[in-house]
Amino acid sequence: MQALRFTNKKLKLAEILKPNDKNEALVRVVKSGICRTDLEIVKGYANFAGTIGHEFVGVIEEAKDAPNLVGKRVVGEINVGCGICDLCQSGDARHCPQRTVLGIVGRDGAHAEFLTLPTRNLLEVPAEITNEQAVFTEPLAAAYAITEQVSIKPDTKAAVIGDGKLGILCAQSLALKSRNVVLIGKHKEKLSIIEKRNIEGVLLKHAPKLNRQFDIAVEASGSESGFNFALDLLKPRGKLILKSTFHGEAKWQAWRVVVDEITIVGSRCGRFVPALELLKNKAVDVESLISTEFPLRDGVKAMEQATKKGVMKVLLSITD
Amino acid sequence: MQALRFTNKKLKLAEILKPNDKNEALVRVVKSGICRTDLEIVKGYANFAGTIGHEFVGVIEEAKDAPNLVGKRVVGEINVGCGICDLCQSGDARHCPQRTVLGIVGRDGAHAEFLTLPTRNLLEVPAEITNEQAVFTEPLAAAYAITEQVSIKPDTKAAVIGDGKLGILCAQSLALKSRNVVLIGKHKEKLSIIEKRNIEGVLLKHAPKLNRQFDIAVEASGSESGFNFALDLLKPRGKLILKSTFHGEAKWQAWRVVVDEITIVGSRCGRFVPALELLKNKAVDVESLISTEFPLRDGVKAMEQATKKGVMKVLLSITD
Repeated sequence: MQALRFTNKKLKLAEILKPNDKNEALVRVVKSGICRTDLEIVKGYANFAGTIGHEFVGVIEEAKDAPNLVGKRVVGEINVGCGICDLCQSGDARHCPQRTVLGIVGRDGAHAEFLTLPTRNLLEVPAEITNEQAVFTEPLAAAYAITEQVSIKPDTKAAVIGDGKLGILCAQSLALKSRNVVLIGKHKEKLSIIEKRNIEGVLLKHAPKLNRQFDIAVEASGSESGFNFALDLLKPRGKLILKSTFHGEAKWQAWRVVVDEITIVGSRCGRFVPALELLKNKAVDVESLISTEFPLRDGVKAMEQATKKGVMKVLLSITD
Repeated sequence: MQALRFTNKKLKLAEILKPNDKNEALVRVVKSGICRTDLEIVKGYANFAGTIGHEFVGVIEEAKDAPNLVGKRVVGEINVGCGICDLCQSGDARHCPQRTVLGIVGRDGAHAEFLTLPTRNLLEVPAEITNEQAVFTEPLAAAYAITEQVSIKPDTKAAVIGDGKLGILCAQSLALKSRNVVLIGKHKEKLSIIEKRNIEGVLLKHAPKLNRQFDIAVEASGSESGFNFALDLLKPRGKLILKSTFHGEAKWQAWRVVVDEITIVGSRCGRFVPALELLKNKAVDVESLISTEFPLRDGVKAMEQATKKGVMKVLLSITD
């Protein structure tokens, strides 16, 4: 089968054997999405080698432990825990120290004709959700997780920094709970996507006038400066949600966090169940985030395209 | 009157006029304590000029708005808010943007024969508490605040990094709630102070074996390395309490906070009421932290002494 692989520090489309793990379900991938993390991986993040990709929708071809699921259209939770440690037993496989992560840690990913995942990781996609929308389940789950980590009320003032895909999904998630959400970014055209969603778009250069006004600030820009900028926006006792992973060591003024008694909340993955509900109910707009779609055979080109300025979600169409 | 002042970047004992603010209570200072923040101020922290000191016990000499308080022995909350902003109205003067802070921001402090504070900032000291103990009300309140910021249960595993005064007070505060408190420091003799309090002392060089075991880690060492070290100690989804302010920009690996979904909680001051209760009930040992006492006239020497290795709390005896 064909797979988009990062091996020996090189990205290429390769012909490899179809995966064959009888303890897991075999999924034929229909579509996958290129995430910023994919771009980071080919720059060296997480030291990963193998098939990249972790956002997908597919169809179950084989599932020894659940034959009734064969033929179902599914998305998949990307963290696979050991199943036996305390964290896994408590239901938190996302933090299992032995975990593999689809296309990120020790497990071949989704930019391929087939993948395997344990049956427990797979969720059926309701008929109301298109394939293009379903690919957003994983990033939407990650964005919506914020609302489960911190309390957001209708009058909570929230700012999201970064008008990329993640920032826009975070802003939409927060706007489901609060009437006071501002998205701050550098791109007028990207900010315009959210304006019909009752979210205020503010260009970065105008943002200093908003300093010290927010209860919550989400750093989703993926840049080091975004962190200190988020601190500027917060009221005392405010909460800074750290969403994006940037490489290496960042600098920060720790004393500001102490003096203003700020809480910083690291936030990575989220639960798929509420994300599928949101997609089913059209509560968020994900389709406006799609820039373009390539066939898997043009995967390398698609990855290049995804790095270009102004380009948002790039999809790969893999099988029918 | 005599006062220990930091002016023109120089620390000296000066003869100045007795304070005279008719809107505030006049307090004769009996004893004061030298805090690490005092030492930071004479290195330039907070850009303060004036009389330093914010830990004290004293006697009210004049209080126009509460004449019945005259003669009472008191301690004082150090933050003075504007009284009219939203934060002050909500009862949070500690974060008022216009606040002054005794001996730290825009307000002469406690290493002097007299100080003034609004009557609302002063709390009577119960007879069961000695003057030496009462001086610890402010730092103990700051340490005990942790237990109000994060939930600590009997089986919560908590580590405190730093065996200075603040670290020892934090460890004792946590040990009132949890059976599993470890204090990590460099000094065997300091660690021995807490061992009779059901807290385990661990030398820093032996601490790596404790990595990823704690629900809560408190950074109270005042050093940049303490922060990354605290991260090492935490389980996924752990909480890092940032207690100490260190100067300038620190480096950190922000991605670790995201991947492990760590929460960082900045923590500064605390409420005096519970701290006075703890002192009254002998629930914490503060006297073991006192290294020595100087008269105010030797204040400069006392500050020098407080910087020395192995020296813990240095008190100033000011009036009888």
